[in-house]
Amino acid sequence: MIKAGIVGYGNLGRGVERAIALTQDVELAAVFTRRDPSEIQILTRNAKIESMENLTKHTGKIDVMLLCGGSATDLEIQMPLVAKHFNFVDSFDTHAKARDYFALADKTLKAAGKTGAVCVGWDPGLFSICRLFGEAILPNGNSDTFWGTGVSQGHSDAVRRIDGVENAVQYTVPLADAVEKVKNGQGGSLSAKQKHRRVCFVVAKQNAAKLKIEQTIKTMPNYFEGYETEVNFIDKNEFLKNHVKMPHGGKVIHTSLTGEGNRQLMEFSLKLESNAEFTSSVLVAYARAVCRLHKEKVYGAKTVLDIAPSYLSPKTHLDLISQLL
Amino acid sequence: MIKAGIVGYGNLGRGVERAIALTQDVELAAVFTRRDPSEIQILTRNAKIESMENLTKHTGKIDVMLLCGGSATDLEIQMPLVAKHFNFVDSFDTHAKARDYFALADKTLKAAGKTGAVCVGWDPGLFSICRLFGEAILPNGNSDTFWGTGVSQGHSDAVRRIDGVENAVQYTVPLADAVEKVKNGQGGSLSAKQKHRRVCFVVAKQNAAKLKIEQTIKTMPNYFEGYETEVNFIDKNEFLKNHVKMPHGGKVIHTSLTGEGNRQLMEFSLKLESNAEFTSSVLVAYARAVCRLHKEKVYGAKTVLDIAPSYLSPKTHLDLISQLL
Repeated sequence: MIKAGIVGYGNLGRGVERAIALTQDVELAAVFTRRDPSEIQILTRNAKIESMENLTKHTGKIDVMLLCGGSATDLEIQMPLVAKHFNFVDSFDTHAKARDYFALADKTLKAAGKTGAVCVGWDPGLFSICRLFGEAILPNGNSDTFWGTGVSQGHSDAVRRIDGVENAVQYTVPLADAVEKVKNGQGGSLSAKQKHRRVCFVVAKQNAAKLKIEQTIKTMPNYFEGYETEVNFIDKNEFLKNHVKMPHGGKVIHTSLTGEGNRQLMEFSLKLESNAEFTSSVLVAYARAVCRLHKEKVYGAKTVLDIAPSYLSPKTHLDLISQLL
Repeated sequence: MIKAGIVGYGNLGRGVERAIALTQDVELAAVFTRRDPSEIQILTRNAKIESMENLTKHTGKIDVMLLCGGSATDLEIQMPLVAKHFNFVDSFDTHAKARDYFALADKTLKAAGKTGAVCVGWDPGLFSICRLFGEAILPNGNSDTFWGTGVSQGHSDAVRRIDGVENAVQYTVPLADAVEKVKNGQGGSLSAKQKHRRVCFVVAKQNAAKLKIEQTIKTMPNYFEGYETEVNFIDKNEFLKNHVKMPHGGKVIHTSLTGEGNRQLMEFSLKLESNAEFTSSVLVAYARAVCRLHKEKVYGAKTVLDIAPSYLSPKTHLDLISQLL
């Protein structure tokens, strides 16, 4: 049995707890929180709820920590502390900082004789693997990634900060004609704006100037300017009924010609009714891999690109060959 | 530069030659054939054409052999000979024999201090990886594989052997309503017959009894009986115009509920205008991986499940993180 710890009990942490419950070989030992542990209720019987300050007291008792904090502020602080004492997996996703983050994790883990997987999830994560498969197998082709249909937390937040907005959600939606272009080999140079449109559902405060809100959204630099943007005003009830889930997804398309002009198309797509629960499930599978690598004395940081698929599975090698190959 | 050899110069071997030409880091050293080498013409300048009998004379001169024979008769004979002297990759796909084949390859390679990847391609191969990702990440879900739309060589052969048939091709076609069922989580127990239909295009000999041919096809045990089967008679010209390519493809769909009933859907699909050329491209990427593993002194047999994605790429680890993660 793999003893797992969860660091941070938000959406992702709760998803990890549920994902662990669905496995046969992983059990939740403890949840670590910055909040007052007495205020936290978890689902798992027999698991401890601990203050983050007591983390190192569990050294040697937990096989792998699942870091469920956010990339923006939490992980850069928590990861180096955890990596000194524990194997871990995290979903760091600030692309521009990934190289430095990996290097820091690698150095810390190697010094401690521990193993960690960074930037795990679906993008970065499974989508990264698909991009690699695409260009390694068909090197003269093009890979394109589409995101959505799904909720962008950053864009939703940006809309909610506008004067007169009570609540809002923003869906990123792939443009169907751009997807077709890419599949036909006419992508490659399309920008994010040429591949996606943005659809907002906004609950306006009473007497708010809706036209002005719409205008503010559509011209917001970096977030909406230059995008095909649709703004729908709805009432609070419709919002609560239809727009509180956090779906997401996307696709990686790689296409190329081989031989005498034969088009080859690889496509990996995800359609997720809960982004956090899926990401959590990926984290748990890679937590298993991290424990196996550590047993084999493979120390340091890994990304999803560095881990053989079989490490994710609890099955024996013979069963994998018989059942999956 | 990786020096590669091709063993067997049929459709797959020619595809491998073309795939090698598209890489920057692999070069074709020699093609080995059972035919008279003087009768063979290859595309690559500077590569040798050698009789299969001279294979072992190239020991130490070729980094990796790509075995391009068929699973039915060639590979079980050729692989053990090659594995004694060379690193190799092959596309063995007789599922029922995969365990024994792997064990034989592993034993032979380890004794020789060589490395090999067996059962490489898209199914077994990339599809196997997707099935593993599915069940490892969402363990309470279901994976379903659909094949097609594509040419089944075995079924085409079976139709061609019928009295009065001059030429024929059989396409395996996934049933759209079965795909929908699976995506909605209602698959799992569907049989191959419930997931696919079979579409034949037949050129009949002059004065052949078409009704009888159609009847013979539709009731053929193991091949067509129980399947929804469509038989179209066409003339020779239409056959040559529209039915000489060997397209194939398929999809692996994994779906599951997480949390409070959130449906999660993973789908990997291939749409290939040339089955052989795509399989060849996969073989070349794994040939690169085999060479890297051998350099790291990892000896023995591997499947696609045992090889980390990064081994397929010629890029440095830093470039992979920056460009793909």
